Amino acid sequence: MPQLRCNLTISLDGYLAGPNQSVENPIGEGGRHLHDWAFTLAAFRKEHGLEGGEVNASTQIIEESTANVGAVIMGRNMFGGYPGPWRQDPPWTGWWGDNPPYHAPVFVLTHHPRAPLVMQGGTTFTFVTEGIEAALVQARAAAGQRDISLAGGARAFQQYLAARLIDEINVSLVPLFLKAGERLFDNLGNAEHRLEQVRVIAAPGVTHIKYRAIK
Amino acid sequence: MPQLRCNLTISLDGYLAGPNQSVENPIGEGGRHLHDWAFTLAAFRKEHGLEGGEVNASTQIIEESTANVGAVIMGRNMFGGYPGPWRQDPPWTGWWGDNPPYHAPVFVLTHHPRAPLVMQGGTTFTFVTEGIEAALVQARAAAGQRDISLAGGARAFQQYLAARLIDEINVSLVPLFLKAGERLFDNLGNAEHRLEQVRVIAAPGVTHIKYRAIK
Repeated sequence: MPQLRCNLTISLDGYLAGPNQSVENPIGEGGRHLHDWAFTLAAFRKEHGLEGGEVNASTQIIEESTANVGAVIMGRNMFGGYPGPWRQDPPWTGWWGDNPPYHAPVFVLTHHPRAPLVMQGGTTFTFVTEGIEAALVQARAAAGQRDISLAGGARAFQQYLAARLIDEINVSLVPLFLKAGERLFDNLGNAEHRLEQVRVIAAPGVTHIKYRAIK
Repeated sequence: MPQLRCNLTISLDGYLAGPNQSVENPIGEGGRHLHDWAFTLAAFRKEHGLEGGEVNASTQIIEESTANVGAVIMGRNMFGGYPGPWRQDPPWTGWWGDNPPYHAPVFVLTHHPRAPLVMQGGTTFTFVTEGIEAALVQARAAAGQRDISLAGGARAFQQYLAARLIDEINVSLVPLFLKAGERLFDNLGNAEHRLEQVRVIAAPGVTHIKYRAIK
């Protein structure tokens, strides 16, 4: 059975993004440093069309996060731009330029309908207004036998977790305090969760812990 | 230089204790399960006067938490009982019975003066009303060349962290969601912190990560 899985990096105080997210500062103030562990890696740079970089214990995390992934789901705030209805001029096409690093169908959760957006490199953004379960159905159909990656952000994650739809969570825990912003593990609803810790990888400046939902 | 260090267990969503702490439920609702990883260990049971138990990768954490410790600091809420002035009849003497597992001088932060309390097994509770720095001075004097353990709870930890007085934090991260209660990494103040991840131990049902403050 294909899995719904996610790789999310948080600060030691639990934030996925710092305060005051904006077009200039998409991960909020201080949030970019959450990803310092990834930026230097050859595996990360390659996905973003860059050369060079290191190989270390985190390389496996980057590689796994895209391996066998047939579709991606993300929230509107992660796709970004601004809240509310879509504007025409210029159209917001995501943070990632003409060739986003997904190379797969991406389903964006939004309250505002919009025609699909075909990007270079195999990434298509499809805007889903019928909620998280509808997005998952569409993503499963697109992914076939492959897994679905839940890319974020916090509110999309929380909705899928509260609905007990997530199979696997890889948390990358970084020794930073952001002190404010969006906490990943908040608004978890009333469902009972049982998680099993299945793997721990210690890497420079980060610890990666993989959890599996026991259903 | 003797270190101020702490070993604290939190849920994946960051809680050191669940909601509605009480005399019957000192770690709050669901909070006791945070420590399941420890309860089965021979090293933990021995400290609490019990026989038997397991040895696993967490054993080292229990042993280190008391090794070379010459004094302990804790907050009033961790010492427990009730908020406000001390009552005489019966006097509250902590959660741990006549022979607490500290076997060292313990300095309890409180707003309410009280005479020192001498327990069995080398534990003495001294009540400090002059604040966290005064408690640390007294603990250092008592510890001599040995380290000081900051036992908790959340508010005592937060005050020492905000004042940049903590040298080493061992976080034991448990795959549970408590959803409410006391978050460890909250109210961190305005000070800038730089933490270095120095060791990661994967153990059954828990990951132990040691951080050192870069000063």
